[in-house]
Amino acid sequence: MSENDTFKIHFLPNDKIVEIEKGNTVLDAAHKSNIYINSICGGDGICGKCRVILSSGKIDAPATKLLSSEEAEKDYILACEARVTSDLQILIPKETRLEGKKILFDQNEQHSLTWNAILNKAQFKHDSLVKKVFLKLEPPTMDDNVADHERLCQAIMMKEGVDLNIMQTGYRILKQLPEVLRQNDWAVTVTLGHRGRTLEVVEVQPGDTSQRNYGIAVDVGTTTVVASLLELESSKVIDSEAIYNTQMKFGEDYIQRIIYVIQNEALDEMQRTIVSDINNLISTLVKRNDINLDDVTSIVCAGNTTMIHFMLGLDPENIRREPYLPAANFIPPIRAAQVGIDINRRGLLYALPSVAAYVGADITSGATAIRLDKEEMPSLFIDIGTNGEVVLGNKEWMVCCSASAGPAFEGSGVRHGMRAAKGAIEIINISKDYDVNYSTIGNIPPRGICGSGLLDCIAEMLRSGIIDRSGKFQKGIETDRLRKKEDEFEFVLVEKEETGIDSEIVITQADISNLVRSKGAIYAAVSILIESMSLSINDIHCVYLAGGFGNYLNVRNAITIGMLPDMPTSRIKFVGNTSLTGAKMALLSEEAFETVQKIASQMTYFDLMGNPKYMEEFMSANFLPHTNLEEFPSVQKELSSQNT
Amino acid sequence: MSENDTFKIHFLPNDKIVEIEKGNTVLDAAHKSNIYINSICGGDGICGKCRVILSSGKIDAPATKLLSSEEAEKDYILACEARVTSDLQILIPKETRLEGKKILFDQNEQHSLTWNAILNKAQFKHDSLVKKVFLKLEPPTMDDNVADHERLCQAIMMKEGVDLNIMQTGYRILKQLPEVLRQNDWAVTVTLGHRGRTLEVVEVQPGDTSQRNYGIAVDVGTTTVVASLLELESSKVIDSEAIYNTQMKFGEDYIQRIIYVIQNEALDEMQRTIVSDINNLISTLVKRNDINLDDVTSIVCAGNTTMIHFMLGLDPENIRREPYLPAANFIPPIRAAQVGIDINRRGLLYALPSVAAYVGADITSGATAIRLDKEEMPSLFIDIGTNGEVVLGNKEWMVCCSASAGPAFEGSGVRHGMRAAKGAIEIINISKDYDVNYSTIGNIPPRGICGSGLLDCIAEMLRSGIIDRSGKFQKGIETDRLRKKEDEFEFVLVEKEETGIDSEIVITQADISNLVRSKGAIYAAVSILIESMSLSINDIHCVYLAGGFGNYLNVRNAITIGMLPDMPTSRIKFVGNTSLTGAKMALLSEEAFETVQKIASQMTYFDLMGNPKYMEEFMSANFLPHTNLEEFPSVQKELSSQNT
Repeated sequence: MSENDTFKIHFLPNDKIVEIEKGNTVLDAAHKSNIYINSICGGDGICGKCRVILSSGKIDAPATKLLSSEEAEKDYILACEARVTSDLQILIPKETRLEGKKILFDQNEQHSLTWNAILNKAQFKHDSLVKKVFLKLEPPTMDDNVADHERLCQAIMMKEGVDLNIMQTGYRILKQLPEVLRQNDWAVTVTLGHRGRTLEVVEVQPGDTSQRNYGIAVDVGTTTVVASLLELESSKVIDSEAIYNTQMKFGEDYIQRIIYVIQNEALDEMQRTIVSDINNLISTLVKRNDINLDDVTSIVCAGNTTMIHFMLGLDPENIRREPYLPAANFIPPIRAAQVGIDINRRGLLYALPSVAAYVGADITSGATAIRLDKEEMPSLFIDIGTNGEVVLGNKEWMVCCSASAGPAFEGSGVRHGMRAAKGAIEIINISKDYDVNYSTIGNIPPRGICGSGLLDCIAEMLRSGIIDRSGKFQKGIETDRLRKKEDEFEFVLVEKEETGIDSEIVITQADISNLVRSKGAIYAAVSILIESMSLSINDIHCVYLAGGFGNYLNVRNAITIGMLPDMPTSRIKFVGNTSLTGAKMALLSEEAFETVQKIASQMTYFDLMGNPKYMEEFMSANFLPHTNLEEFPSVQKELSSQNT
Repeated sequence: MSENDTFKIHFLPNDKIVEIEKGNTVLDAAHKSNIYINSICGGDGICGKCRVILSSGKIDAPATKLLSSEEAEKDYILACEARVTSDLQILIPKETRLEGKKILFDQNEQHSLTWNAILNKAQFKHDSLVKKVFLKLEPPTMDDNVADHERLCQAIMMKEGVDLNIMQTGYRILKQLPEVLRQNDWAVTVTLGHRGRTLEVVEVQPGDTSQRNYGIAVDVGTTTVVASLLELESSKVIDSEAIYNTQMKFGEDYIQRIIYVIQNEALDEMQRTIVSDINNLISTLVKRNDINLDDVTSIVCAGNTTMIHFMLGLDPENIRREPYLPAANFIPPIRAAQVGIDINRRGLLYALPSVAAYVGADITSGATAIRLDKEEMPSLFIDIGTNGEVVLGNKEWMVCCSASAGPAFEGSGVRHGMRAAKGAIEIINISKDYDVNYSTIGNIPPRGICGSGLLDCIAEMLRSGIIDRSGKFQKGIETDRLRKKEDEFEFVLVEKEETGIDSEIVITQADISNLVRSKGAIYAAVSILIESMSLSINDIHCVYLAGGFGNYLNVRNAITIGMLPDMPTSRIKFVGNTSLTGAKMALLSEEAFETVQKIASQMTYFDLMGNPKYMEEFMSANFLPHTNLEEFPSVQKELSSQNT
């Protein structure tokens, strides 16, 4: 009954009402009211993730195969395709929402434990990028009438053993200095921040506040933003928090978001969105731990090249256009306030360096976290996130590439895929008679399958003969779990009664194809890098696998499906979110920060898209474990023993 | 006829009307309307410089001996003592005004000549603190996909031979970079500024703008502010300009101004005033030479410690309070915009370093200009301005002090004293029969006497026996020029008919006492420094005398009156405004800038006030040339030959 063709959309369970003009989609309305609706394809009507329930009202939508007839009966619609033609009430079902899913951000996280041991093991000296130093200055006399500023600098020099020449004092500090120095009888705490080759006096406070010095480490992911709060003096990780990147409303992957920015001249909006997410994380962390925002003096951010560009408001346009150039890989430290990040108003923001448009600071940070630069023998670092990046190297050299693996192991493009959050199936075991055992994160009824579960699933289906080496279902097997539905075969992992959502949890033929392509892309990238250095798989000493798979990653299964090269599992290490780990190390250790810079400047980037061999390798890897079984002798043995 | 006890004051010849409440002084009214009235004592009714003519209206004023009965008849009043009790019309006579007096700022100034020879002679390499470099970058390809920022930095490194590690790029620059680089097909001009140990990319412009790079050198004097505009690439001085420091309305000397700041919490006002003066100078210079303000990329400022504090808005309170501490002697380069100085909005401001509260950047700049740090033998640098500062040193060491000489040689505290401006008597010659020959700056009828004229005057009066060695008039001499007026003896230098003002130009007994005290203070300071290093006057190789004396300084006369030590005049050099010269050198040469820093950090400051010997030396020097004639053998000879 609205006039002017404007309609009210009432979203439940959020209970938010938004007005929108006729002809817009339900997804548009959700964006407008800042409600997150799963939408991997960014509104192209392809992924089918944005299913919502139309409780009342009328919409206009094309026919779709992405909804089952059962779903259609229950008034499920695709938010991205449903055009508004009346006032509506829309119910967003659990699986389409993100709220309430606690994201797991670091399976090795041990809060309130000091990181000294971790730094020690990584051979980094604890020396925060920004530190507080308590100084008792000698009060001036007629015989010692050194000016205020120089008196302070000399005291810093004596205590910290730094060269006076590298010290810089901001203008604002100079203006307050005479008063601050005299406020507590020449006892002051200086905040010192590394800025390139100089050491900046970031703040001077009366009295001793040296114990109140906190820093934030952030992994700015395309999908998830994770932040940790650290006590810098004691090198304790106090707390961590994660949220979904609100930029998802502009597109599920970063290329879509770059296009959005270009088409809508929306760089400012994109920057504000991620900065607001980061500020929300910081605000949550400081409030929960009763910390003053002014005592947060530094923030270190890792993330892929595009995310860092968005955060800083740097023009991302050339990232997606040949020859794929970032505005900058190396970002000088700046004041966090300059980009709108809320910490101490003079606090410093350190964005870690990228290598190229498609190998970002998450990778340089990760390579630092695992100290790839200390390896004697060539080792691999593989980070599987929204993309897959591979680094091969040792203490003398490093080569890297981006595998365009896609986010299948993050749950995208997989019917019941999800991130490693509560309710995600993270371990799957399938018996010879096709019985499925699983365990979920948080031991609650399953809501979907996370990366480690998907990996187990493929490996176990291969072992038990549910699928063959090409990833196709073996239609002859005797089980009701394998069934055909709407022209596609699917395997039921969990029956509806057992799940925490309103349906079974299945894995479809399309899901398997996606996962196989994804693992194939990674293996092909690994092969190309190894070949490029004239090495063979036998020369690889160690594989570090990073990503948000979950708590328990079965590395044997990663070999079985041919994602990782065939080698003793003892030499494969699952290392979790190394992007965040590296950011924490940099926050706590200037040496670590310098190491990230060094690694970034020394890595050689290979562009796979321009490499004709890559497509060849990819095709060969598009098999379980590989077209050439000889590359996987242990899997060959395993599979043949299984078949006997 | 005003209501509310508010009256209108009409100033002539300015033709400005200002309203002010009853009970305020005429000087207050002048301040309120921003009219400058001479007032050396800062409104204390002591100096008698603020005489104005009451054309109409009624005032309330105490009796004063500072006005002659003649003057009183002509309705002269002291602006600082006359309290407003009705609407007034006030005529400001020529001698009380400053307008229209063109200040001479640098007698060696040769506009539009390149400074290469001057830099060469001083052994400084031409390498501007802020320079523009034109670069043609290699356009990127798939095989050369270095990111924009690093592409630029590498090109700078190649062209300038600088280490990548010391380079810093501001956040604002990064934001514009992708667009700017592509605007003119990868041809750009970068503006590079030295900031401590780092080299900052201050600006990046499309195309070649490298020929449009200008800098400003400023001598921020207590009384006069002088600025030069330089073309940095060709090291040409394009133009110069000077104005009186508008802060004079808050007090004639800087201690008065500090008190004003404290009593009125007026640091911001004080800063705005000097910044506005500097902006006016810059604006005049760029307009007159048709230069774009954006092309002015740097400004170097010299000046005494207090002036630099005022300009930067640094708390000056501790400068006048034991143990006399500046907020800072060494000021890091900052953006000029941060203090409100109008050049390119990212242009850099370099404030030269001070040594102590009373030995400022004018002295370190001057010592650099004369390359005191290159002298093999101990030499003296004496700068006589509003104060007198003395430096003794050579390439190995330097000691310095402030002499509290007072501004007598700048014309203050001297009845007809004035600065070296048009109409100032700059040379005086007195014959045996007491006839006075003189010449004025600009060859116009005399309006007063500047420093060099005053110095000549004392020396010539001593030679001709008008005064004795104690500075007292010899009342027995046969001339009408010596006369007694209102209880004080005075000597008429120029008859009323010959002057450009409405009175004779005389020198009084009080004037002579002031000048003798002033020169005595300087000589005492020289003696203390020489003694402190266990040297004698014979060890002094050279004397460099700086200050605003005028174009022609008779150094022989400076010896005759005992201001400078007795030595061959060939070893005494009058060097003019070295504060400005040093600022120009620093602007053009990073090496010169570094030399100022080095000199400032190496100078040892002696506090004369706390030195009991100083008063002794001062008393001895309070004679012409000195109590101890043996210290001045050449003067002894001169005077005895004159007397025979």
